[in-house]
Amino acid sequence: MASGLVVGVVGVTGAVGQTTVKLLEERKFPVRELRAFASARSVGKTVTFKGESIRVEAAGPDSFKGVELALFSAGSQQSKELAPHAVRAGAIVIDKSNAFRMDPQVPLVVPEINPHAVRGHRGILACPNCTTIVTVMPLKPLHDAGRLRRVVATSYQAVSGAGVNGVEELRSQTLAWARGEGITPRYFQHQIAFNVIPHIDKFADNGYTGEEIKLVNEVRKILELPDLPISPTTVRVPVFTAHSVAVNAETEARLGRERAREVLAGFPGLKLWDEPADNRYPMPVLVEGQDDCYVGRIREDLSMPNALNFWVVGDQLRKGAALNGIQIAELLIR
Amino acid sequence: MASGLVVGVVGVTGAVGQTTVKLLEERKFPVRELRAFASARSVGKTVTFKGESIRVEAAGPDSFKGVELALFSAGSQQSKELAPHAVRAGAIVIDKSNAFRMDPQVPLVVPEINPHAVRGHRGILACPNCTTIVTVMPLKPLHDAGRLRRVVATSYQAVSGAGVNGVEELRSQTLAWARGEGITPRYFQHQIAFNVIPHIDKFADNGYTGEEIKLVNEVRKILELPDLPISPTTVRVPVFTAHSVAVNAETEARLGRERAREVLAGFPGLKLWDEPADNRYPMPVLVEGQDDCYVGRIREDLSMPNALNFWVVGDQLRKGAALNGIQIAELLIR
Repeated sequence: MASGLVVGVVGVTGAVGQTTVKLLEERKFPVRELRAFASARSVGKTVTFKGESIRVEAAGPDSFKGVELALFSAGSQQSKELAPHAVRAGAIVIDKSNAFRMDPQVPLVVPEINPHAVRGHRGILACPNCTTIVTVMPLKPLHDAGRLRRVVATSYQAVSGAGVNGVEELRSQTLAWARGEGITPRYFQHQIAFNVIPHIDKFADNGYTGEEIKLVNEVRKILELPDLPISPTTVRVPVFTAHSVAVNAETEARLGRERAREVLAGFPGLKLWDEPADNRYPMPVLVEGQDDCYVGRIREDLSMPNALNFWVVGDQLRKGAALNGIQIAELLIR
Repeated sequence: MASGLVVGVVGVTGAVGQTTVKLLEERKFPVRELRAFASARSVGKTVTFKGESIRVEAAGPDSFKGVELALFSAGSQQSKELAPHAVRAGAIVIDKSNAFRMDPQVPLVVPEINPHAVRGHRGILACPNCTTIVTVMPLKPLHDAGRLRRVVATSYQAVSGAGVNGVEELRSQTLAWARGEGITPRYFQHQIAFNVIPHIDKFADNGYTGEEIKLVNEVRKILELPDLPISPTTVRVPVFTAHSVAVNAETEARLGRERAREVLAGFPGLKLWDEPADNRYPMPVLVEGQDDCYVGRIREDLSMPNALNFWVVGDQLRKGAALNGIQIAELLIR
């Protein structure tokens, strides 16, 4: 272990993959050798790690010989196909896709919240969806302090949550507007520049989107509260990076604003920005590039005695994806 | 009445004032003479009404002689100062500012919801805040069908809700970004391009903003439910026109999705866009310029038996302000 691990990053050219490589370097993760995997069409590209240029290899069933840790962010289909091969080749897989999250044999881990869940893994560990992570971070200390009874979560999600294509779509639509040209949606279902789209992932028969259903199921699994009532609405907004969530949380015990501020401020990975008199509260442009999630606008719910409203913002490429994945790996090698 | 009224529009150069003039023409409101009022610095400008150019006059205490109907959208301070003068001069005032909304002697009217409230007015009638109108429109039929028990409302508000300065701020910040330049906030507290700001109006001591408090108080007054529990979060988003609100509404009677769709679709001023399988739901870019409010994403709340989630979008310059004001006037002259 002294000399580090052979680490494979699968989906290395994507938004989360690029952030993963940057964070492995930033956090001085013990990497002996970095291997960069992507789809066949990215072969020939390079990624830079610690000043070295690394050639991108095509990810295939036989790619993982010698890889000890594989960080997957290539999409559910690729994870389903390739992760079992990586495990058979001897790697531990940390998967950021939706492929294995709800598999009862796969731990779904936010290291600040349920580090014990990594025990007994069978080679694959899953990283929650970005919106789940940003939402569940403040819910955990509030639950520990007052026991959650119900949560209403309403999101404002950045385009980079949909990957580099999402970023390019907002960028190109905005530039077209600036040139006075018309806007044609290519990647999202509708125009995203100067618009909000209440639709992320596919619709289920009950009218909820996949993103909303993931939020409910994953928060329940992470908090080990399989019946926690959660009412979700997820919305895409024209922001490049960092997801915001407006949360209404009802607890069994009355917490009040001061106690809520105290328990939120004391939780690792959370920071309080809650000085309204100074116009200080979290926002995407301030949180982009930050590792922590930021909570503010903490208010007692005037409509119900034991409830709170708050606003949480997290860089969904960092804590919402790449960072959380690396933190899981750090737990494993500790 | 056959030959129409002398109508004064106060704040005629603002976003709502401009829309008011456009709608008076569009709706063939019986205008005998239009008088255009604004602050002293706008004197010399002109507005166009039915192909005629009308010179802007400075609004002052002595401006209202002969005015029969005064539509105010010049801000609370101006309304407080000038509306009583207009009433003394014989005009009926329909005020779109916050100045008189919660005055028990002033009717606060959404014509589809509480037309009876206009009776007994003493010269001034108030138009609710834009976010209130968009939110309360679907709440009324749901209340009539199932009696509301609690509402959680989370908004996505367009910059034109803050007037022409808000529009100019988003436009100029976005153009600066397109030129590769830095962005300096001038009008909003923080950058609005590619950001969301959970702060509209001033903060009160309890951590809520004026916008959030208005939403609670005004919805209660309009629905004549002075104790209705409402939990509000209001957020500015980089959208030019049309406010969106994600609403969680709990009712005494279980409505269910189909019944909710039915009562919403049947309410005047509301339209249903709720075909998720066809990616059809309301969004700001589709609703801008429309008179009706649009409801979609109607779902039973999986976290609570008698609750619903839905998404409502309305052009806040039209139904959220100018149109609602003219509709009140239409009620009065009917």
